[in-house]
Amino acid sequence: MAKSMKKSENFSEWYNDITERANLSDKRYPVKGMNIWTPYGWKIMLNIDNIIREEMDRTKHEEVCFPLLISEDQFAKEAEHIKGFGDDVYWVTHTGKNLLDVRLLLRPTSETAMYPIFALWVRSHAELPLKTFQIVNVFRYETKQTRAFMRVREIHFFEAHTCHTDFDDAEKQIAEDLDIMDTLAKKLCLPYLNLRRPEWDKFAGAYYTIGVDTLMPSGRTLQIGGIHQYKENFAKPYEITYEDEQGEHQYVHQTTYGMSERLVGAVIGVHGDDLGLILPPDIAPYQVVIVPILAKGIQERIIEECRNLENEVKNAGFRVFLDTREIRPGSKYFDWEIRGVPLRLELGQRDLERNVVTFVRRDTGKKEEIERSKLITQITDSLRLIAENLLEKALSSQKKNTFLAKTLDDAKDAVGIVKIGWCGEEGCGTEIEEITDMTVLGTPIEKEDFSGQCVLCGKTTDIVAYLAKTY
Amino acid sequence: MAKSMKKSENFSEWYNDITERANLSDKRYPVKGMNIWTPYGWKIMLNIDNIIREEMDRTKHEEVCFPLLISEDQFAKEAEHIKGFGDDVYWVTHTGKNLLDVRLLLRPTSETAMYPIFALWVRSHAELPLKTFQIVNVFRYETKQTRAFMRVREIHFFEAHTCHTDFDDAEKQIAEDLDIMDTLAKKLCLPYLNLRRPEWDKFAGAYYTIGVDTLMPSGRTLQIGGIHQYKENFAKPYEITYEDEQGEHQYVHQTTYGMSERLVGAVIGVHGDDLGLILPPDIAPYQVVIVPILAKGIQERIIEECRNLENEVKNAGFRVFLDTREIRPGSKYFDWEIRGVPLRLELGQRDLERNVVTFVRRDTGKKEEIERSKLITQITDSLRLIAENLLEKALSSQKKNTFLAKTLDDAKDAVGIVKIGWCGEEGCGTEIEEITDMTVLGTPIEKEDFSGQCVLCGKTTDIVAYLAKTY
Repeated sequence: MAKSMKKSENFSEWYNDITERANLSDKRYPVKGMNIWTPYGWKIMLNIDNIIREEMDRTKHEEVCFPLLISEDQFAKEAEHIKGFGDDVYWVTHTGKNLLDVRLLLRPTSETAMYPIFALWVRSHAELPLKTFQIVNVFRYETKQTRAFMRVREIHFFEAHTCHTDFDDAEKQIAEDLDIMDTLAKKLCLPYLNLRRPEWDKFAGAYYTIGVDTLMPSGRTLQIGGIHQYKENFAKPYEITYEDEQGEHQYVHQTTYGMSERLVGAVIGVHGDDLGLILPPDIAPYQVVIVPILAKGIQERIIEECRNLENEVKNAGFRVFLDTREIRPGSKYFDWEIRGVPLRLELGQRDLERNVVTFVRRDTGKKEEIERSKLITQITDSLRLIAENLLEKALSSQKKNTFLAKTLDDAKDAVGIVKIGWCGEEGCGTEIEEITDMTVLGTPIEKEDFSGQCVLCGKTTDIVAYLAKTY
Repeated sequence: MAKSMKKSENFSEWYNDITERANLSDKRYPVKGMNIWTPYGWKIMLNIDNIIREEMDRTKHEEVCFPLLISEDQFAKEAEHIKGFGDDVYWVTHTGKNLLDVRLLLRPTSETAMYPIFALWVRSHAELPLKTFQIVNVFRYETKQTRAFMRVREIHFFEAHTCHTDFDDAEKQIAEDLDIMDTLAKKLCLPYLNLRRPEWDKFAGAYYTIGVDTLMPSGRTLQIGGIHQYKENFAKPYEITYEDEQGEHQYVHQTTYGMSERLVGAVIGVHGDDLGLILPPDIAPYQVVIVPILAKGIQERIIEECRNLENEVKNAGFRVFLDTREIRPGSKYFDWEIRGVPLRLELGQRDLERNVVTFVRRDTGKKEEIERSKLITQITDSLRLIAENLLEKALSSQKKNTFLAKTLDDAKDAVGIVKIGWCGEEGCGTEIEEITDMTVLGTPIEKEDFSGQCVLCGKTTDIVAYLAKTY
């Protein structure tokens, strides 16, 4: 048994350790920053993808899949975009022994792959809005330290791309995106902040960017989503126009919404404890694990009864695993605690005789006996309670680690999210970043009541900015 | 309305035309050989992927996802493999403005990405067999003419990779793969041949290869699957060993099983007709389409009743679409015929009055009235009958286009699959290919009763070889 790391003592080591021990990812792949999705981690990711697909279906986005490779000339059309991504792209220059005429790059995001084609797809106002999405891998040559799920060079990525007749319709899309984000975050039991990023930290080419941030136990925030209003910024260079009701050609207004495998990173970091992962029931590969406690003489009966349990739980619509490995029950508990399975059922001779099942919650460790006939109700209720508990704990931790700082000195001392008065000027913003060694995450999209001074220049202001160290 | 192409007159043009008009793929992407999966085509592909995932789950394969990029040194370890794929790979040489120390290539298939890691994963006989698969995109710089789904440069790809203690256990895996192939092919209503490829046409690095071929209406065959016995060919260079029961280190025996988006190409080509696609019910994005026939005065009642129908059909577990577009019913029929929806329901005033639904099968065009109360039974039965009919038609067409040729001249004149006597020598095989301008697909894995002469050298033989022109 490997020694357990304490999450509270060294979050970073704990995170790396648990990622490995829970078998979420294998980091030994010989190309740096590119990890292998092992079966358990991949199942979590696919479960998240499925929730996203359900939400996309509900909101009538259509799934597409664009090519990975983008030609240099298409990529270069929007000046800000290439400035933002150009240094981090992987270039394909040869096929076999032959030099390519035009270099190709691996998509770091798909604007420049999609928009030349959107220019062909969009024709009339009647076809708008165009709402599409894809779930693909994107590539960014990150130079900062890599970390499983949080900073990697091949990124499992969701991106929605929409086209609208005008700014207001695009704004409606952003409201819908925020609603989707909320549904998803609830299923992942994650609190989050919607912050309008400062001008100097927008997505390359965007008119504005909403960063969706969650607070990790280290006190750093992790961006888990990005929602962008492009206005006509891409429509112009890519000539995406439609014919309006008067027969005039107009540029579309565009939005995008991106999320990635960082969602898995957030779930690991926010919910886990010293024993291992704690997975939100909606994305757990197994929601229930069954451990037989074999007693001499009636082993077969116990296994048989466990199979009955397994079928009953499966037929009720839950994801369940019956662990029949030939190792001690204690080792099984240990394994499934590391892997964060929300509920464990134990069935031994005593349970069998009394027609009960021993029932253990991963989040609280609480153990109780449940009457056999009440099992399914109990599972249903407990999974809901676990989800609620995870969200509440995370919310209260975020609250506890959010501070209003009156001065720069106060801000510097804080670990977590720091709110400050800010005049709104870029000059002050970037200097505050330098002095505090934190990042200006932005301003809340729903205006907060505030009146005070900019912590740097002292100017009276009603703007609150959020600061944090970030991943 | 674009003019319809006749499938029987020019299969190739019909195929390209229908792929576009059914909105399966957009070929206007500016990088050659890389097409865009549009929503309808992508849904078909995802439905096929889901069937594959179910089969993988049933047979206890675990899904993984390995990185796209492979370093040159890992790729080069198996000599035959690099000979087979080296000329067709895309090379990444730079990130941003910087030259990479070690060149990276985009996987053309994942042996060389996975096997260095399998060497770490596999330790003891107790952990074998290792059964994994992934569904990813692979890249091959095809120099032949590209064609949607059938020959592209970015390929949507399924690949199962397994490790076994010995040859016999690996052979059992191949039997299981053949069983999976059979289940899948039945759901796609595709007849196929399992042919052991001749030595000179094996997968690069394999001990032997079974090609799974289906006959297209053009008379050419399309390979839709490949099942490979590697023996220890990769285990040796990648040092994948396990400790046997005696504590000795042994090389694993490996197999792979690959399929791709060609399955979509086969479905289009084999089943479609002059009106458009005909989709097998198991993979149709919509199995049923409902078209309201609006009559003056009771439009709302008809729409309402159509919504009831939609709900009823959906609740019975079918994929259904209610087409409320403001265009003539005839245009809707036309559209959904192109897109190959297996069943169309029409509901108008007469139907409403008589408590019936008009019911049209895409495969036969047969139109009948169905009592409202019998609708779900009728849908269930009809979808089964459609699948059976598609498979039967395809089987009979394959039979009709398979010939036994006694001489090379006979072989040369045939269009379709040609069976010949073959001595089994490579020299004769390749010369037969040259003379007939056909490919030796191989020999059936279940030996056929035959006694005759090699069509080239005249030697007495009991080997039947299959020849065809191929895609």
